[in-house]
Amino acid sequence: MADESFTERITLEAAWAWIDATPARWAVEEAELPAALGRVLAEPVSFAADRPAFDLAFVDGYALQAQATLGASAYNRLSLPLATSGGATTAPVAAACCAGAPLPPGADAVLPIHAVEASAERLEVGEPAPRGAGVARRGETARRGEIALPAGRRLGTAQIALAASAGAKVVKVARRPVVALWLAGAKPPGAEALANALSALIARDGGVVRRPIGGALDGDADALVMVGRSGWGDDDDSVLRLQANGGRLDHHGVAFSPGGSTGFGWLGANPAVLVPGDPYAALASYEVLVGRLVRRLAGRPAPFAGPARRCRLAGKIASPVGVAEFAPVAIEGGSATPIAIAPSDGLVGLARADGFTLVPAGLEGFAEGAEVEVVTLDGGEAT
Amino acid sequence: MADESFTERITLEAAWAWIDATPARWAVEEAELPAALGRVLAEPVSFAADRPAFDLAFVDGYALQAQATLGASAYNRLSLPLATSGGATTAPVAAACCAGAPLPPGADAVLPIHAVEASAERLEVGEPAPRGAGVARRGETARRGEIALPAGRRLGTAQIALAASAGAKVVKVARRPVVALWLAGAKPPGAEALANALSALIARDGGVVRRPIGGALDGDADALVMVGRSGWGDDDDSVLRLQANGGRLDHHGVAFSPGGSTGFGWLGANPAVLVPGDPYAALASYEVLVGRLVRRLAGRPAPFAGPARRCRLAGKIASPVGVAEFAPVAIEGGSATPIAIAPSDGLVGLARADGFTLVPAGLEGFAEGAEVEVVTLDGGEAT
Repeated sequence: MADESFTERITLEAAWAWIDATPARWAVEEAELPAALGRVLAEPVSFAADRPAFDLAFVDGYALQAQATLGASAYNRLSLPLATSGGATTAPVAAACCAGAPLPPGADAVLPIHAVEASAERLEVGEPAPRGAGVARRGETARRGEIALPAGRRLGTAQIALAASAGAKVVKVARRPVVALWLAGAKPPGAEALANALSALIARDGGVVRRPIGGALDGDADALVMVGRSGWGDDDDSVLRLQANGGRLDHHGVAFSPGGSTGFGWLGANPAVLVPGDPYAALASYEVLVGRLVRRLAGRPAPFAGPARRCRLAGKIASPVGVAEFAPVAIEGGSATPIAIAPSDGLVGLARADGFTLVPAGLEGFAEGAEVEVVTLDGGEAT
Repeated sequence: MADESFTERITLEAAWAWIDATPARWAVEEAELPAALGRVLAEPVSFAADRPAFDLAFVDGYALQAQATLGASAYNRLSLPLATSGGATTAPVAAACCAGAPLPPGADAVLPIHAVEASAERLEVGEPAPRGAGVARRGETARRGEIALPAGRRLGTAQIALAASAGAKVVKVARRPVVALWLAGAKPPGAEALANALSALIARDGGVVRRPIGGALDGDADALVMVGRSGWGDDDDSVLRLQANGGRLDHHGVAFSPGGSTGFGWLGANPAVLVPGDPYAALASYEVLVGRLVRRLAGRPAPFAGPARRCRLAGKIASPVGVAEFAPVAIEGGSATPIAIAPSDGLVGLARADGFTLVPAGLEGFAEGAEVEVVTLDGGEAT
């Protein structure tokens, strides 16, 4: 390929814009609960019944009629007869009840157990029960047919639990995009390790990895990721191979380091990206660029897979002007220490990182003590 | 059980201290790569060979002797003969080479392809090559036997890729703790949904869930989690059942809402915790208390599963003094909107949350506009 490729590098922001302009067509499929954990709802989940479905007590205690407790105080304790189990609570009769149980007929309040003293047959009440206290009326939280979870919501544990408790057995979710991972040039054992790493990241971001067998590129996949031989050296034939299969590149080269030879194009109607074969450059390119495409196709668009947090730099980061720099850092508390990256083997340093910060192309770096946004990586500490 | 349980509630901080004082015995086991993703190293991984294992070029370009380029400039381009493939580079001979390839004998620098113009037989050099440029010497990144990844490191994708590229086939990791999940009282279908949710959270935190069959508690598990019937009502028999199986409670009740009936004790030498059966209270108790125990046993101690971030409150949060309050919020950008929680059915609100903040027991809440620490939840947005 040609020298001029370097002068054609697009900015990181332009690369993001290219990704964000790819068509995001979500196919819809059904997923069973609770296996749908982590998926994205393609259609809302609605409540199949009023919630609660009947008037109930929501504390452990004693159901009664509020009016029977009027005037009760620490100095004027009222004594109420207790109903036998399951009995109605006509004033001034009270009845023991458990959280979640139907409210006994006639009751309109529940006094929690710590507010009373009970014997087998009588209840001593030292405070008045406001009407409705400890009681949830049928449908007061949600009416049948109301939306419990909107389309686009990612299903975490609480969402799965709510959908299940709302009566859902299956939910409609965005189909996972199939990402064809094509290893162009990296040599074993590094190649297989890199393929495994990229496969894990694609799965994390909601994709399903397909590894093509033989030389033909996989035009049926929702996206194609070609790894290695993405540069401009004599053996860098990824572009040629993409073209030979009917594909094309819109852009080759990003003003981003490492991962500057990342390329963006199409195989048929589906996006195809070239990623460098060097593991460090490939993983940086994935975290900052390719993963954004996978998440978009999976219906969970987010600039980065991990959350960002503000940290104070415990050392300076130098970076050439004109190139956005991926800078790995170790996080401790609110402090981020830049990690030295061996120019020939960045993976060694990346494996020590808890996250990374991006130095914008317009800056020469960050000074020690600067507040920067750090995106956390999956091998890093959560806090 | 007794009223006075409420006066014996320990503070949230005391509950954390109890958890952090439980013995964390890591059993060690082998895990194959790449399946060890997410596990925690029990022993360090060392480099099995010098890294790099030989002198190599780390850019695509032309290997040569630096002295042959002395004086080269845009105004004084030097022309060097190109060696045939695999030839030695005696000055002034240069040879094409690819990133990662062994440095040809005699060469001590590599000029990247964009710095030169090459024909089939000659190279035009417009700048001097510093000695060592583009070259990595054997062992310069790491020596054989040096530690690549320390014990305690969580294996993310970069760590797995590094371990694999360092020659490891298996790694020594902390055995996953077995967590017996015992459903005491919640009723179907809510009970099964809650068990599934807690199972997913335990797995997320590095544990393996075992569901006991029949009534006997599982004293062999590394930890026991009893769900439901943890309160002080008539049917709250979890404490009695724990005691009947030879266990005991150190503390019952935490000044924490919801989840105030969480209890902490032992079954034999292994920690046993009681968790309320209400799904909202159970999930809050898990995220703030029980999960911390599971992560500790899994060798990855962290106060919370998700990362924390500072957000500005878009509304006020009111909370009674004396109780630490779990307050779900929706996150948008750097803003956190408190979510109203139905007193009888908090799960509906929790499923709308991206994270939660904790109101300390000493505060009456947070004012609108306050900066608070928000812990992200798994169904929430990453950024």
